[in-house]
Amino acid sequence: MKKPSEVLLDRAFHHAAMQKLAAKRSGLQVEKMGRPDIVHNTLLQVLETPLNWENQLRVFVHTQDDYVISVNPKIRLPKNYIRFVGLIEQLFAKKQVPEAGTPLMKLKKATVRNLIDEIQPNRIFGFSTLGQPTLMRTAAKDIADIKNPLAIVGGFPRGHFPNKTRQALNSMFKVDREPLDAWVVAGRFVYDFEWAIGVAERRIKPTATNHG
Amino acid sequence: MKKPSEVLLDRAFHHAAMQKLAAKRSGLQVEKMGRPDIVHNTLLQVLETPLNWENQLRVFVHTQDDYVISVNPKIRLPKNYIRFVGLIEQLFAKKQVPEAGTPLMKLKKATVRNLIDEIQPNRIFGFSTLGQPTLMRTAAKDIADIKNPLAIVGGFPRGHFPNKTRQALNSMFKVDREPLDAWVVAGRFVYDFEWAIGVAERRIKPTATNHG
Repeated sequence: MKKPSEVLLDRAFHHAAMQKLAAKRSGLQVEKMGRPDIVHNTLLQVLETPLNWENQLRVFVHTQDDYVISVNPKIRLPKNYIRFVGLIEQLFAKKQVPEAGTPLMKLKKATVRNLIDEIQPNRIFGFSTLGQPTLMRTAAKDIADIKNPLAIVGGFPRGHFPNKTRQALNSMFKVDREPLDAWVVAGRFVYDFEWAIGVAERRIKPTATNHG
Repeated sequence: MKKPSEVLLDRAFHHAAMQKLAAKRSGLQVEKMGRPDIVHNTLLQVLETPLNWENQLRVFVHTQDDYVISVNPKIRLPKNYIRFVGLIEQLFAKKQVPEAGTPLMKLKKATVRNLIDEIQPNRIFGFSTLGQPTLMRTAAKDIADIKNPLAIVGGFPRGHFPNKTRQALNSMFKVDREPLDAWVVAGRFVYDFEWAIGVAERRIKPTATNHG
């Protein structure tokens, strides 16, 4: 039997518990809590891609209460949401999954600043409707021009990066006039980044007639 | 209390029930059953996009047992998988959701052929590893050149289009050397189609300095 503290909060089911937790813990924004579905959808959109298969992507998930999940590029993420929730609950209980052997996800306590200090990016980019209007293709090219860049997508349903994240950014891009879901931004970024570094062309050699 | 026949089958939980059903009903391939998560992820990737917001996309879901779901472009799809499953169960029980008022999804019995006869596309495209190697950007441009095109993405975990679907296709594109998940193909197609018809450039006017 799971203890209440071992249940991954989900806005669709645990609204009252989230309100209580936010009231008790200062600094937590309730509107950014309880959306593991956003993380799941976003990971699904970026992990099973040529960019990741070619080992050109590292994914980290930072949570509001300063946990960081490091994702092994070799993970086969559960496609089913309920299985994903089970895996994340296991991760928070055991600090890594699977518990033995090469971890596919690791958890530690860390702020965005700690993560930046660890991965030492040469430049940090964020996607936000508060940013400079920029075509995603252009943004992806700019990012691909940097050795060891870090690109941050907000994994919350609305609102903006907290100040401490925003202050860490060197550039902030607005890629549509409306806010886009995190998984759409992340998926399009990964795809345009593939183009920027030539992955797409390298993997498919068009044959003479495309119009067969 | 739901009757067993009203439960949406999900491979993660109903493996035995699916095996039994496939044994009873000829023509159903068990490896293509029980993956509503694929449909959910794919819809999430294509519905909340500039292309759909600009009313340039119509989405239909065809099931192995010849049901067709028509999706109203104005739908706000549940982001949570469990809520999505509930909505689809309601759809199969009531034939439309919501039951009263403008339907956001409608269900009817129809083959791929019936659907084609109804929407009368001028040309039909499929994405498949059996197709012509083609960059997705090129494929999307070819498709955008057609008035009223139909593009089909296989919403199953592996395997190929059934013969009757394949025979309906005018062109079949292979866009990566490995099979891509349905939601990756669909998301990239929608994005490149936006580019092909100028949606991206129309919605974002880059400002002079992108590198602020």
